[in-house]
Amino acid sequence: MVKNAINQVYKAAGAEALVVVQEDLRFYLTGFHSTFGVLVADGVKNVFYTDSRYLEAAEKALKGKEITVCEYPRGTRLVELLKAYKSIAVPLDRITADDYISFTDEGYILYDSASSFKTAMAVKTEDEIRDISLACKAADKAYLDLLPQIKEGMSENDVAALLEYLMRKHGASGVSFETICAFGANASVPHHLTGMAKLKLGDEILLDFGCKVNGYCSDCTRTVLFGDDGKHGEFKQLYEKVLTAHMLVKERFTAGMTGKQGDAIARDYLKQHSLAQYFTHSLGHSLGINIHESPNLTPTDDTVFTDGMVFSDEPGIYIAGKLGIRIEDTVTLSGGKVVSLTDTDKKLTVL
Amino acid sequence: MVKNAINQVYKAAGAEALVVVQEDLRFYLTGFHSTFGVLVADGVKNVFYTDSRYLEAAEKALKGKEITVCEYPRGTRLVELLKAYKSIAVPLDRITADDYISFTDEGYILYDSASSFKTAMAVKTEDEIRDISLACKAADKAYLDLLPQIKEGMSENDVAALLEYLMRKHGASGVSFETICAFGANASVPHHLTGMAKLKLGDEILLDFGCKVNGYCSDCTRTVLFGDDGKHGEFKQLYEKVLTAHMLVKERFTAGMTGKQGDAIARDYLKQHSLAQYFTHSLGHSLGINIHESPNLTPTDDTVFTDGMVFSDEPGIYIAGKLGIRIEDTVTLSGGKVVSLTDTDKKLTVL
Repeated sequence: MVKNAINQVYKAAGAEALVVVQEDLRFYLTGFHSTFGVLVADGVKNVFYTDSRYLEAAEKALKGKEITVCEYPRGTRLVELLKAYKSIAVPLDRITADDYISFTDEGYILYDSASSFKTAMAVKTEDEIRDISLACKAADKAYLDLLPQIKEGMSENDVAALLEYLMRKHGASGVSFETICAFGANASVPHHLTGMAKLKLGDEILLDFGCKVNGYCSDCTRTVLFGDDGKHGEFKQLYEKVLTAHMLVKERFTAGMTGKQGDAIARDYLKQHSLAQYFTHSLGHSLGINIHESPNLTPTDDTVFTDGMVFSDEPGIYIAGKLGIRIEDTVTLSGGKVVSLTDTDKKLTVL
Repeated sequence: MVKNAINQVYKAAGAEALVVVQEDLRFYLTGFHSTFGVLVADGVKNVFYTDSRYLEAAEKALKGKEITVCEYPRGTRLVELLKAYKSIAVPLDRITADDYISFTDEGYILYDSASSFKTAMAVKTEDEIRDISLACKAADKAYLDLLPQIKEGMSENDVAALLEYLMRKHGASGVSFETICAFGANASVPHHLTGMAKLKLGDEILLDFGCKVNGYCSDCTRTVLFGDDGKHGEFKQLYEKVLTAHMLVKERFTAGMTGKQGDAIARDYLKQHSLAQYFTHSLGHSLGINIHESPNLTPTDDTVFTDGMVFSDEPGIYIAGKLGIRIEDTVTLSGGKVVSLTDTDKKLTVL
């Protein structure tokens, strides 16, 4: 599997050598995580250079994977490891301008490996979908454990901390992004910074959370009511609209459609109910090793979606200073159809 | 303060306009956190462009800070916002090669703002040191709460999860890096990936942990024994050596010395005891908004340290397959001397 990914990206990129320094891309190709390292693949051999902190672990992890582990020569510039090659492939959207200048000054012909990585990483293997699914399950279990523990007077930060702890207890290595917990009108800010607001009876609670298992992410959003003070008529109506938009995507989006067509399923439905102006972001994004990958479900993404892609389905409605509702599952395409990897109930929950 | 930072970096960078898209650098200059945004400062006005998700929060946060908030025009390329300028300053070690090519193709004269940011960010303001100190306090309290809760049979992941939860309970917004928890010989891998190993009586426990408060990081490592099975003679001897190396740095490192001189204080002491070959990393790194900033305390860093810098003091000894000992505090220079921001005891703790 690892070898296949290296070969696929190496061939697609087209240069003599594929050079990978980025943490996530190295992890994708090797399955080994380190904050420092360089993978050099030239079609004949794959060499992973890293420093003393990781050598022991790298040798253990990469045994039998046709990747040679070497200590990165201290104080050596990267270009000096690449003298055997005239052309190298690097992701131009991920290497720095400094590195670009340094490579071109040394006379290397640069090939852009960015789209090769995006194409390869967009379609997940069975192992990758299993890991994402495990991350979804850990988040699901944590969410279900959390709900009965939410009490009046807890802060947004308290709830987020508890949810993150529960995700770790259920096997996550950490969060896949900073947990968003928004009480009441704070939810109208789609990326509210979780703070010290205290929970009051009748508040809505918006939770956007995800975790990592085996290096792969999950992403989920739930909006619930903390008690029903009888003032939630509009909220409930809008909740049903967001949920219907979410479910329509699951029913109608199929392999062969574009990201733009996916986004339109939710957006057109909300437009029919004069709510499109409150849906202020796009429908979804791919996820995997990173919480935001390509392709996206936006009004402009023409990428054709295929089986094995994993993405979020997250329509939302935000009315400034009043309310915010977002319902999000992590899903994949399998047999041409959407299959949800997130399992918890989306019917409006009143705690 | 915000205005001062913008002006300092703007003037040092030297171009007509300073252009900042990087999340951490934008946060440094504006005090406002968002995953997407562009700050353009031209000496006359400061404009912060962001998308609909952040507009409401940005306007609230930046009120009275001489920064105008504008919605980023959807679908517009960044260069189109900069047509008024011939020269722009961007950090060449942080913009992508793609952006570099795009800017130069459009005819912009590029100035490198990287060193201006590094210089400005290296010396923390009182507010920044207060925030880092708060992050250290949250980590300290969490560590003290954690110790009596560590029980035989817990996994490394359980302990890390609990510690992270306790840091959040004590006011952290999240971790500043993935917590390292290593039991027994796992500690000999300096960057051990926290896993499912179970705690046994007599194991050592190495914990490397940090959290964020108000966007600023803390960093701390403690190595303790889980019970004393009488087989820890060598461990205890080495522990004292690492602790002495750590304390010597605190006593002898002063403003006006270089990072290299700081590293040498610990390394030379360990060398006198024939232990330098087991000290396989450098002594420390600066931290602030990011967990790794400049300057560093390495065998090669010639930067002169000054009051207001905040960095880690973390000597360590690693014997593969056997043990690992690291003792780390976050410290600052004040009145020319090292002041510790981490407060918990470093005497060998036996649980």
